[in-house]
Amino acid sequence: MVMKMKRDKVFKYIESHFEEHLSRLQELVRQPSISAENRGVRECAELVRRYLKDLGCSDARLVETSGNPVVYGYYDAGAEKTIIVYFMYDTQPVDEPGWTVPPLEGRIVEMEPFGKCLVARGAINTKGELGAFINACESIKAAGEKIPINMIFVAEGEEELGSRHLPEFINKYLNKLKEADAVFFPTADQDQKGKVQMSLGVKGIVYFELELDGKTWGYGPTEFDIHGSNKAWVDSPAWRMIQALSTFTTKDGNKVLVEGFSDNVLPPNKEDLELIEKLEKTFDEETIKEEMKVKRFMNDVHGKEALLKYLYSPTLNINGIWGGYIGPGTKTVLPYKITVKVDVRLVPNMTVEEVIPKIRKHLDKHGFKEIKIRELEEGYGWAKTSIKEPAAQAILKTYREFGYEPEIWPHMAGSAPFCMFNREPLNLPFVMGGLGHGARAHAPNEYIVVGEGGPTGGLITLEKSYVAILDNLSKML
Amino acid sequence: MVMKMKRDKVFKYIESHFEEHLSRLQELVRQPSISAENRGVRECAELVRRYLKDLGCSDARLVETSGNPVVYGYYDAGAEKTIIVYFMYDTQPVDEPGWTVPPLEGRIVEMEPFGKCLVARGAINTKGELGAFINACESIKAAGEKIPINMIFVAEGEEELGSRHLPEFINKYLNKLKEADAVFFPTADQDQKGKVQMSLGVKGIVYFELELDGKTWGYGPTEFDIHGSNKAWVDSPAWRMIQALSTFTTKDGNKVLVEGFSDNVLPPNKEDLELIEKLEKTFDEETIKEEMKVKRFMNDVHGKEALLKYLYSPTLNINGIWGGYIGPGTKTVLPYKITVKVDVRLVPNMTVEEVIPKIRKHLDKHGFKEIKIRELEEGYGWAKTSIKEPAAQAILKTYREFGYEPEIWPHMAGSAPFCMFNREPLNLPFVMGGLGHGARAHAPNEYIVVGEGGPTGGLITLEKSYVAILDNLSKML
Repeated sequence: MVMKMKRDKVFKYIESHFEEHLSRLQELVRQPSISAENRGVRECAELVRRYLKDLGCSDARLVETSGNPVVYGYYDAGAEKTIIVYFMYDTQPVDEPGWTVPPLEGRIVEMEPFGKCLVARGAINTKGELGAFINACESIKAAGEKIPINMIFVAEGEEELGSRHLPEFINKYLNKLKEADAVFFPTADQDQKGKVQMSLGVKGIVYFELELDGKTWGYGPTEFDIHGSNKAWVDSPAWRMIQALSTFTTKDGNKVLVEGFSDNVLPPNKEDLELIEKLEKTFDEETIKEEMKVKRFMNDVHGKEALLKYLYSPTLNINGIWGGYIGPGTKTVLPYKITVKVDVRLVPNMTVEEVIPKIRKHLDKHGFKEIKIRELEEGYGWAKTSIKEPAAQAILKTYREFGYEPEIWPHMAGSAPFCMFNREPLNLPFVMGGLGHGARAHAPNEYIVVGEGGPTGGLITLEKSYVAILDNLSKML
Repeated sequence: MVMKMKRDKVFKYIESHFEEHLSRLQELVRQPSISAENRGVRECAELVRRYLKDLGCSDARLVETSGNPVVYGYYDAGAEKTIIVYFMYDTQPVDEPGWTVPPLEGRIVEMEPFGKCLVARGAINTKGELGAFINACESIKAAGEKIPINMIFVAEGEEELGSRHLPEFINKYLNKLKEADAVFFPTADQDQKGKVQMSLGVKGIVYFELELDGKTWGYGPTEFDIHGSNKAWVDSPAWRMIQALSTFTTKDGNKVLVEGFSDNVLPPNKEDLELIEKLEKTFDEETIKEEMKVKRFMNDVHGKEALLKYLYSPTLNINGIWGGYIGPGTKTVLPYKITVKVDVRLVPNMTVEEVIPKIRKHLDKHGFKEIKIRELEEGYGWAKTSIKEPAAQAILKTYREFGYEPEIWPHMAGSAPFCMFNREPLNLPFVMGGLGHGARAHAPNEYIVVGEGGPTGGLITLEKSYVAILDNLSKML
């Protein structure tokens, strides 16, 4: 029995409750939940739990893990089909320079050409979408309609830390989660010109620190930075680390020289190649570069070549590096320690387990046994869903109903812990989608468009698209 | 006419005024004067000016420069001979971790085996000595004796910034400064076991930053850190800088590979070699290493070989490096900029002027034209005074009067702007000295010993030694 929903009624309700709905997004971004700093995380979890409770979930609770709690909720729609709705309620830190508004204030800013935008940490990654999805669900009910599908809500608070304790939750709730037919992650997938980008997967990630200090090395200062003039007879952990790092890449910093780094990398499969043929036609690299303020891609690649690089290359990225005196002016010290934050992105068929041993072997082979590797995350693998999956077809149908022919990406270069649902033990199709736009995740002035009338959907369109996705999933799964 | 001073009377006065004298040191360290941060600098200059005025200087004023003021004072003793007393009143920042006391509090701490120590920023570098010297001068007068030599005080507030505006002052006061027969810098030159280390010179220094950002490069993110997953198709200024830096040294970080870097380096002269022969006999490398918490020197050198390395090698030192996310936990960004603070120490006969062009040429030659060099200091040259100079003999005599046979160093590896007095246009012999001990300049828990009874002199001994130095200079110049 598939329930018929009168979408028009719901859409009208959404249109007439814009201000209230926007308030929920502001409430969410005003509640800090910076998992890297353990700031406001539990308070934010409580806020999300309250939303689920208020929505009418028969069960809505914080499930403790060894780290931050997972907010679990079950909405029993009395429907045949069930989806897991995946949320993340944590965000990146707000320490980076360049913010033109207080990052936790929830300020609404007029931005050309979009109109009204919410500019805040988490606006697009992903409190905006979380709030919009809750609004959408509430609107279905408030308009007198029925939510057409059962929903298992899983909101995790450690996405930005690599979802390290999500498996604990999954194992605990395995039987319940197995009731699901698919997993849906509400996103906002229009680019800044309004084009819809549909993504069918993600890369995996391993994140670690490399560190060298004089104590471990046996050379150089061991406990504190000493006077810089001693470089004449004391070794420098900083120079030594530079030498070690330099062995990892070619001179342009682009080719990874770790032995066997790409051994398990597969070429794109047949479906991927077909998707890329199509994708190439609409791929708007200038817009992508403009969003990032990047003048040109590495090696000046364009078009299909750029796409293949982006999607099928594993990466070895320096996220941060520091040591010694980093304040203004001059201070002459010989630093006793230097630290580098590195992440590796995994493409099919690389595994999490192979990364650290290869990095260790590389360091040892080049004579840098004294450099420590500190894993900051458990890491997780890549994930992919075929476009042929009914769940993916439901997303596609939704976009077409709204008049968009999406640009389909076989996967994206970013990472999310979708493999935890997509592969063993659940093996569920994992899809994401939504009609809206935002950008600058992990960067200053992160935003989500909330006003309508610009080239992209605003909050109203985003919520309508979620309603339609739920409706289509209920019919097509 | 040489005036006879009754030292005993002065020494008794010093012994009975310890607490008051210590208060002056505390007052000095409590007044921040962090030139790199422009914190408290002018207030500290005013404090020093007041000391000079109270001492009886006929002229005591702040002389403005393009940077921080120089505190100038003239004490007319009606004597035949005149010295310039060089002070610095600025200090390093206090941002480094590891302080066990508030660095600006002026706390007195019992430290084994020294006894009472003042632990504070500037304690040994060099507010402790500045305060002690003023105390010594006042004590001569308070004991009813006459200061035996005319003194031109020059207290600069930019020593930690490379004394960049001191030449402005020197040019302005050139005629007055030319009245001097020598320059004296009050220091505290016992090591932690009490051995006296007499140093006859300093290395020069050039301090600069290397920086690479995507805007200058034309590759990579240009305005802010972007999402780390973009490393797959966007260049990384961080990796690129690593590659550039790696060309500067051998794999151990110890041999500088800049073309012509050591071309002007002279071998030690005859006097230096004689001094080093003697020095080697008392050179206590274990104590030096213990003070720095360094297990071994580079290449495991010892004795004379270590001394030659320390004194006659120019250095290329990384003082600090930073870029991207340097907070706790994980944040995945591709940094748009990376900065490195570097200093070069100059030994005879290197010049300030040769350094930056050689660094620039090195970068260009290796294909790193996009890396910017930002000079943070004007830089200054090395300086040396012969042991045969009467001023040096006066210091030596003082140490012997107190029962110490000093270990004589041809120069030290540190830098100070002595060349501005020692070479053109003044060409004055420059000496330093004093019987006391402190350590951890530019490091946490910087201290000066103030109590007596340990292996080193405390504040009383230090002040007595300054009295004797003035007395000996007045007789021997």
